[in-house]
Amino acid sequence: MSQILVVGTMAFDEIITPFGESGKILGGSASYISLSARKIFNGDIGVVSVIGKDFPNEYLELFEKNNIDTTGVEKMENEKSFYWKGKYHNDLNKRDTLATEVNALAHFEPKVPEKYKKADFLVLGNLHPKIQKSVIEQMDKRPAFIALDTMNYWMDTAWDDLMEVISMIDILIVNDEEARQLTKEYSLVKAAKKIQEMGPEYVIIKKGEHGALLFKNNKIFFAPALPLEDVFDPTGAGDTFAGGFIGQLAKTGIIDFELMKNAVITGANLASFTVEKFGTERLINLQEEEIKERLKDFIHLTQFDIELLDK
Amino acid sequence: MSQILVVGTMAFDEIITPFGESGKILGGSASYISLSARKIFNGDIGVVSVIGKDFPNEYLELFEKNNIDTTGVEKMENEKSFYWKGKYHNDLNKRDTLATEVNALAHFEPKVPEKYKKADFLVLGNLHPKIQKSVIEQMDKRPAFIALDTMNYWMDTAWDDLMEVISMIDILIVNDEEARQLTKEYSLVKAAKKIQEMGPEYVIIKKGEHGALLFKNNKIFFAPALPLEDVFDPTGAGDTFAGGFIGQLAKTGIIDFELMKNAVITGANLASFTVEKFGTERLINLQEEEIKERLKDFIHLTQFDIELLDK
Repeated sequence: MSQILVVGTMAFDEIITPFGESGKILGGSASYISLSARKIFNGDIGVVSVIGKDFPNEYLELFEKNNIDTTGVEKMENEKSFYWKGKYHNDLNKRDTLATEVNALAHFEPKVPEKYKKADFLVLGNLHPKIQKSVIEQMDKRPAFIALDTMNYWMDTAWDDLMEVISMIDILIVNDEEARQLTKEYSLVKAAKKIQEMGPEYVIIKKGEHGALLFKNNKIFFAPALPLEDVFDPTGAGDTFAGGFIGQLAKTGIIDFELMKNAVITGANLASFTVEKFGTERLINLQEEEIKERLKDFIHLTQFDIELLDK
Repeated sequence: MSQILVVGTMAFDEIITPFGESGKILGGSASYISLSARKIFNGDIGVVSVIGKDFPNEYLELFEKNNIDTTGVEKMENEKSFYWKGKYHNDLNKRDTLATEVNALAHFEPKVPEKYKKADFLVLGNLHPKIQKSVIEQMDKRPAFIALDTMNYWMDTAWDDLMEVISMIDILIVNDEEARQLTKEYSLVKAAKKIQEMGPEYVIIKKGEHGALLFKNNKIFFAPALPLEDVFDPTGAGDTFAGGFIGQLAKTGIIDFELMKNAVITGANLASFTVEKFGTERLINLQEEEIKERLKDFIHLTQFDIELLDK
């Protein structure tokens, strides 16, 4: 059975949408990615992250209850946890950051527990590219598959480090804006080609409510976002997508473009739940039966009968 | 065999993109819709439109060569043809209108030729809703399927007329911005529901490079736009989509949601060609074999193997 190691943030988010305010709740890339992967993958999942003295025990217990190994989560007793506060615009497509307190994250030096140094699937959430690289270097063997998320900020401030870590991975998962900034290409097809030239064999470009594209060489697969009557809170949708994606891949244990199509659909499936409530709430309470039902929605939404079309 | 009647503009377009200038070329909704439908549908296609004295014979011959009946195209000897000049922004997602000369279109009173008064499929391109309604009223029998396009301008200036004609049709084909203005709903799922309450059983919401959604009651189908390395000129993509859509529907002659999925894919297929060159150039020279090849691209892009996903 494969092993998944997730490296990223565990944090407080405080979210304001036109529909309400969340108060301080569980956030962070590692939280969403691991909880999402757990919905799909029954094997071993470990998290490497950093938290402050204020991180509630009930959050840690939530991960343990979900059989997510938090041995690699370092608690800094003299620091507070990373905190982000943001307010979404009325259409939920834009948000303003109201506060960012880096706190413990400023001193984060990830230490991969022995148990996870042979993990097959490594997911590197958005962090300084040097930190992402240090995780790869701690592994006993090169993981079968390394996925990496990043953001515009590192393109502006740590370009060379970013290029180095991108050259070491199998898939880059970014949004359309990030792909464009990274490559100076407006066309996402051209952007994906340039990213592949930087190293990764696969590229996923997320387009938010417009879905996600998977690229490998000249092959492209597209998964739409499920059209919803209401999006309540988009926070964490991208990380939920990444978690579902890696969970499905690890479940089959095979790295293959055709199988990866299913992983992209699975990511979109889980992300469609996350946006229904604040933070991780919907994800945490999500039942297997609901995921199966929603998969049917995705099938009806995208599959057509080519036999009928030829007639 | 079914009959398609297309009512809309035949005009001059002058298009400026970051890649060049088209000069004065053939444009207009009826041009794109009929030429696109012809690529799919072998039966009878007629056009009702208006042109001025300056409309080149070679354009009319082009339609005749494509076996598109122009009996219903009125030539006003004292007027010039409708003319539009526009310039696209660098990303091709926005455009500025540099000139609009309504000319002959200002006096357009469509007269449906006897031969087409029993047409099964009626496509009403973007025109004043009163004019669209007058066409429906000229028909000897209510067509099996009436498709209608409109735009924000009529929502601002002719709301009651627009509501009246929308109540008479089977499908409204609009873009996302238009759907939102028409319904005051941001969610496209909610917008489509409200539009269905206005009359049409089906709704298509086009999202440009992000694809198109088909709605009927609680059923949704999504066709992506084909991701392209280069979009050269988006002009006419929406009308090409509508033409391919109606062509595929008329080909089967059956109005059914599942079959309509194929029609949406066919529309997206043809639109993906139109944007490759200026105006109708690519569409005109398009070969059946190319459409079939591109259909394979759409299949690879969207179809996944659910059997594999369940394992």
